[in-house]
Amino acid sequence: MAVDTFPPIICTVDVVLLTLHDDALHVVLHLRDREPFLGMPALPGGYVHQQEDRDAEDAAVRVLRDKTGIASPYLEQLATLSGPARDPRGWSISVAYYALVPRQLLPVDAAQLRLMPADRLPALPFDHRRIVELAVSRVRVKSHYSSLPVHLCGERFTLPQLQSVYEAVLGEPVNKVSFRRKMDELAMLEPIDGELELGRANRPAQLYRVRREFRRTLSLLERGLGS
Amino acid sequence: MAVDTFPPIICTVDVVLLTLHDDALHVVLHLRDREPFLGMPALPGGYVHQQEDRDAEDAAVRVLRDKTGIASPYLEQLATLSGPARDPRGWSISVAYYALVPRQLLPVDAAQLRLMPADRLPALPFDHRRIVELAVSRVRVKSHYSSLPVHLCGERFTLPQLQSVYEAVLGEPVNKVSFRRKMDELAMLEPIDGELELGRANRPAQLYRVRREFRRTLSLLERGLGS
Repeated sequence: MAVDTFPPIICTVDVVLLTLHDDALHVVLHLRDREPFLGMPALPGGYVHQQEDRDAEDAAVRVLRDKTGIASPYLEQLATLSGPARDPRGWSISVAYYALVPRQLLPVDAAQLRLMPADRLPALPFDHRRIVELAVSRVRVKSHYSSLPVHLCGERFTLPQLQSVYEAVLGEPVNKVSFRRKMDELAMLEPIDGELELGRANRPAQLYRVRREFRRTLSLLERGLGS
Repeated sequence: MAVDTFPPIICTVDVVLLTLHDDALHVVLHLRDREPFLGMPALPGGYVHQQEDRDAEDAAVRVLRDKTGIASPYLEQLATLSGPARDPRGWSISVAYYALVPRQLLPVDAAQLRLMPADRLPALPFDHRRIVELAVSRVRVKSHYSSLPVHLCGERFTLPQLQSVYEAVLGEPVNKVSFRRKMDELAMLEPIDGELELGRANRPAQLYRVRREFRRTLSLLERGLGS
């Protein structure tokens, strides 16, 4: 190889798939099925396939589906990491995404998947620990002023259940009155006619779902929760 | 070429260099010196050079310096754009950055540069218009809760001058009392001993500068301006 000839830059995507388990953010890791780092738990990731991917996000959706069986939850670009040292195969660019999924949509018996608490991760290959940290930080910040946490909820939930999800993501209690006002302002929920669930002390609580137009996107607050 | 062989993915960086001119955000465009789009104004951009760049940000700093003469102002990753159609040369990934620079640091007589209002752009090649829109939106949102606009100021400024810069970026007036409280909270300014400037009605106004630790980074507000 001539001194001024270099192999192509490696172009990949990585996805931080987050869910809520035991009231804490967890990351879905995939046991690597090839070198480098064969057998290690890692973020679901893979090469961009220019013959089939319309863009990097399309590649992320494909990789997530192929490696975890999860189709199109909420998914957003997080950051792009690059350099000569992050991948032992050579100079690489990885476009990282994060995705949220309700716990009940995760496959229960997938031998190649591991569910790990986001704040107690095992050793991860590449710069995957850094990517998870970026994702958790982004999700926390964004949850203060948006409907993001609803993407961790199942299809139907009560307001107290939704508040618990927000509190688990934010890592702090939320004032109930202020929370309900902010949910009104987000205007992303609709009550399910006639559907009630027995809540605390057997008092029936209204069930809600996310309005269709916000099922794959976000509603934003003018000012954050707590203000 | 065999049907399953593809040329390497094109890896580039693009930089949205923003400044304040006539109280409005402007973009510094560079007249392209090669095909495609030879001679058109475009974002300063170029290939990632794996032999010399430590990462994509390093490439962005290099490209900005080589094409505009601007060295290391505030620079932050914005988004990564990708796909088969955005660059006529083939499937490409561009890591986009935005940078802020005080007007007075721009070269005054650079024949290859054009200063254009961010909201009245000429036709731009590639998806550069979209990248500028993303950058302007990011800067506006971030200016609500951070020290970002100081990177548009010169080395010394009065508080009324800084408030004008915030107002120009946000596109709305800011309450003076609340603004001063927020600047105190950001704790990023220090008065310059004995340096005053004659302000309105010839009343002397204190000159400030950004504290050393915030000259290349941000200080963040707990709650945004206006709350």
